[in-house]
Amino acid sequence: MSRALWDRYREYLNVNPSIELSVDISRMKFPADFLAKMEPAMQKAYAAMNALEGGAIANPDEKRMVGHYWLRDPARAPNQELRREIEATVARIRRFAYDVHSSQIRGQRGHFLHLLVIGIGGSALGPELVAAALGNAGDRMRVHFIDNTDPDGIDRVLAQLDGHLGQTLTVVISKSGGTKETRNGMLEIGLAYERAGLDFAKHAVAITGNGSELDRHAQERGFIARFPMWDWVGGRTSELSAVGLLPAALQGIDIGAMLEGAKACDAVTRIHETRRNPSALLALMWHWATKGIGQKDMVILPYKDRLELFSRYLQQLVMESIGKEKDLHGKVVHQGIAVYGNKGSTDQHAYVQQLREGVNNFFVTFIEVLQDRQTKSTFLEDRATAGDFLTGFLLGTRRALYENDRESITLTIPRVDARNLGILIALYERAVGFYAALVDINAYHQPGVEAGKKAAGAVLALQKKVLDALDKTPRTVDDIAKKINADDEIEHVFKVLEHMSANPDHGVTRAEVRSPFAATYSR
Amino acid sequence: MSRALWDRYREYLNVNPSIELSVDISRMKFPADFLAKMEPAMQKAYAAMNALEGGAIANPDEKRMVGHYWLRDPARAPNQELRREIEATVARIRRFAYDVHSSQIRGQRGHFLHLLVIGIGGSALGPELVAAALGNAGDRMRVHFIDNTDPDGIDRVLAQLDGHLGQTLTVVISKSGGTKETRNGMLEIGLAYERAGLDFAKHAVAITGNGSELDRHAQERGFIARFPMWDWVGGRTSELSAVGLLPAALQGIDIGAMLEGAKACDAVTRIHETRRNPSALLALMWHWATKGIGQKDMVILPYKDRLELFSRYLQQLVMESIGKEKDLHGKVVHQGIAVYGNKGSTDQHAYVQQLREGVNNFFVTFIEVLQDRQTKSTFLEDRATAGDFLTGFLLGTRRALYENDRESITLTIPRVDARNLGILIALYERAVGFYAALVDINAYHQPGVEAGKKAAGAVLALQKKVLDALDKTPRTVDDIAKKINADDEIEHVFKVLEHMSANPDHGVTRAEVRSPFAATYSR
Repeated sequence: MSRALWDRYREYLNVNPSIELSVDISRMKFPADFLAKMEPAMQKAYAAMNALEGGAIANPDEKRMVGHYWLRDPARAPNQELRREIEATVARIRRFAYDVHSSQIRGQRGHFLHLLVIGIGGSALGPELVAAALGNAGDRMRVHFIDNTDPDGIDRVLAQLDGHLGQTLTVVISKSGGTKETRNGMLEIGLAYERAGLDFAKHAVAITGNGSELDRHAQERGFIARFPMWDWVGGRTSELSAVGLLPAALQGIDIGAMLEGAKACDAVTRIHETRRNPSALLALMWHWATKGIGQKDMVILPYKDRLELFSRYLQQLVMESIGKEKDLHGKVVHQGIAVYGNKGSTDQHAYVQQLREGVNNFFVTFIEVLQDRQTKSTFLEDRATAGDFLTGFLLGTRRALYENDRESITLTIPRVDARNLGILIALYERAVGFYAALVDINAYHQPGVEAGKKAAGAVLALQKKVLDALDKTPRTVDDIAKKINADDEIEHVFKVLEHMSANPDHGVTRAEVRSPFAATYSR
Repeated sequence: MSRALWDRYREYLNVNPSIELSVDISRMKFPADFLAKMEPAMQKAYAAMNALEGGAIANPDEKRMVGHYWLRDPARAPNQELRREIEATVARIRRFAYDVHSSQIRGQRGHFLHLLVIGIGGSALGPELVAAALGNAGDRMRVHFIDNTDPDGIDRVLAQLDGHLGQTLTVVISKSGGTKETRNGMLEIGLAYERAGLDFAKHAVAITGNGSELDRHAQERGFIARFPMWDWVGGRTSELSAVGLLPAALQGIDIGAMLEGAKACDAVTRIHETRRNPSALLALMWHWATKGIGQKDMVILPYKDRLELFSRYLQQLVMESIGKEKDLHGKVVHQGIAVYGNKGSTDQHAYVQQLREGVNNFFVTFIEVLQDRQTKSTFLEDRATAGDFLTGFLLGTRRALYENDRESITLTIPRVDARNLGILIALYERAVGFYAALVDINAYHQPGVEAGKKAAGAVLALQKKVLDALDKTPRTVDDIAKKINADDEIEHVFKVLEHMSANPDHGVTRAEVRSPFAATYSR
């Protein structure tokens, strides 16, 4: 390793004492004039971010403000009413957690020991990340998640809670209040409470938009409490709203420290001097690596078990924000950056072989955590601890990649705790916002998600027609499609028949034959 | 959806009644002559696979046979000795699990209730996949994993086992027997048993190569048992050796069904008629999508919670096998296919926005599971179950992607159980082998992994020199680097100083200063 590399390291190392975060971009091979060349675009990105923080309609398609920065610094909200709402909600969350912990709010079978969170996407990944990163054996409540509409997956969670539902608090999270997966999970869990002789509503909390389907449902049934999701908070940036704070507070996590960390990071990433702004540097490095058109994948490698879910969290935050068909002027651009990764050094024994030697279609972000553990370590061989090895593997892999012309960024944080997780979340929220501005897209909508949902609705509608067409007479797929006038949909007719006949629910039977397309179905 | 698409679906659907698996490649947009054009290459791949199964040196660099197919069909082993070893090992695994379950083998505090598996990469991902996919609330033993050298990660697992180590069986897995992460995990856990007043060896089992460092250690200390890892089984294809079978058997999983499934799948993928061979079709589709040079990422989307870890398992299997610098003739090719994914419909709320609208740098593999759950479902709205929604989301997303010119493969399996998991593992092992033959690389070595390990070793050696150079006199990084004559390594000197001074173990203190590079260190 040459002295020149050390000079580059020192020149570009971004050190932020107030948040104990440093960002090393020296192993990204951008030329000396790159930052200067990008500076005008970066200044535009700062201006756009200023406007957003001031309450501009930063999500033009959906005509919404984008206010996740206000959540941790309510004084920045564009009006007093919003400020008061944010502050009152945090206060209510603290109070609610206190009441649960002190058994003033309790289940029909006693003190709430378990917390079941039902949500998906932006209403699950943040809470899942926080629970995994900050959870400990002695937490105030044991947390479980349902983040899908998989019947067997729901049954597995229920099996863990068998006999304990009367001491399980269920939090249902859906911004729109109409997400089918979440609705299904809630209904299935509600039935389980009933089967156990319990009143679900007495164990249920909703976090949702005011007046949504879920909000009305919760009100009618008499849920214990309802907490708001505001239209100016997007799902993937909702971790520091009630979505993330309520589960965390219930688990016993210091939500004040999370909020403080995010606020302190926001203060740093509000600086318009690019070399001093860690989120700006991240966004610029993404732009460098991917040429601003997603040419490379972002591999996230935290060397810490607690951060194993961080890449999944970023997968959503980055890909849903950046993966867009059109830019802000309506031009087709097919933007995006693919994100994957788990943790080091574990992944060194999985796919780092390819990273080092194979197709060079990625850049790595190493996340280094300085503190090894709460206590002192034992030397496992001559003066080396398990944590020394972990550091050695990180540095060794970083070097091995560099030697083969693979680029990497290294973030260094002091430890994984509530404050630092708040910092990491805020750091990436801002970086994504900056990057979107650099490539001129709307980071705050997700128009492509609707198509799949609509198509799924069409499949369910088709299934009902298929059911109506079935009776005791065995019929082929062709016959059935003809009968319901769905010749254009025949492939889906086939698929729903195969699924229904594999399950007892609809009474559909399939006569076994040699070719799958000659099978007959009846009910 | 046009009739033409249905015709294409029927033409290409690969149906395998003996293993109840179907592979749909109709949504990959290869032209009509693609399969014919690839057939000569595919025939060469079959021939190479034949030779491999017959005991040829299929890993030429390491001069090793590649025998994972023998594990589930020992009659195919190239000689009687190997056959007997395989059969005897499976019998010993069954016997051992029986003895543990029946308390004939027990811990110092009684019946073994917990199983702790220590391994990494190929010695962890298979067992982790199986435990997640097939585990249930009523398993014979509760399984825990340590798959890293993260001190805090180890402490978290120990906290879960606090008070229970005397009823915890620890299985240490390392093929080479010298993997540092695993060695570290074992030593740390051994100390924890000691602290609890227990004899670690009386709770320990080793799975490792005959005569390895771990093997000798286990023998000297008197571990309860040792099981073999053979040099002809690679880590990433070791799930059906003792590596995967022992933890599964202990958990109470039907390892006979896993082996049977893999054997039955192997029989199908041994067919040299490409249209009838599901692994051949997968390999060809990968070749089509990536142009044989890794141009697109492989996104794995099982619509089933139990298969959530399957993409991580495939990440290792595919990327470590295919991600290679050189082809078999020594030509530099930088091969590879990036793999990521979690599960549907969850991921629809995370990154499917980008898949549908953003950068088109991927192809999806949907995994459809026909059986929803063990029992009957309730209708959650007009005649629709949670499972009907799951199917609807899969089909809807498949269509939405296709409409936007994004390609996908769909695998359909009847249910997730031991047999079907064995089938999936065997299916992809063979597909990877075929693909490697198509692009002319050695799928069975991992030369790129050594560089990172070697560099890590150098970091640890450097750390010792740094420690030797430290005393009560505060010194800067520059001073220390000069003192140990490591000017070329100064960046790593800095990094290890920062890490050591953040932890109490080495007594290194850092004097706080404004610039990180002006800090002084002493001890």
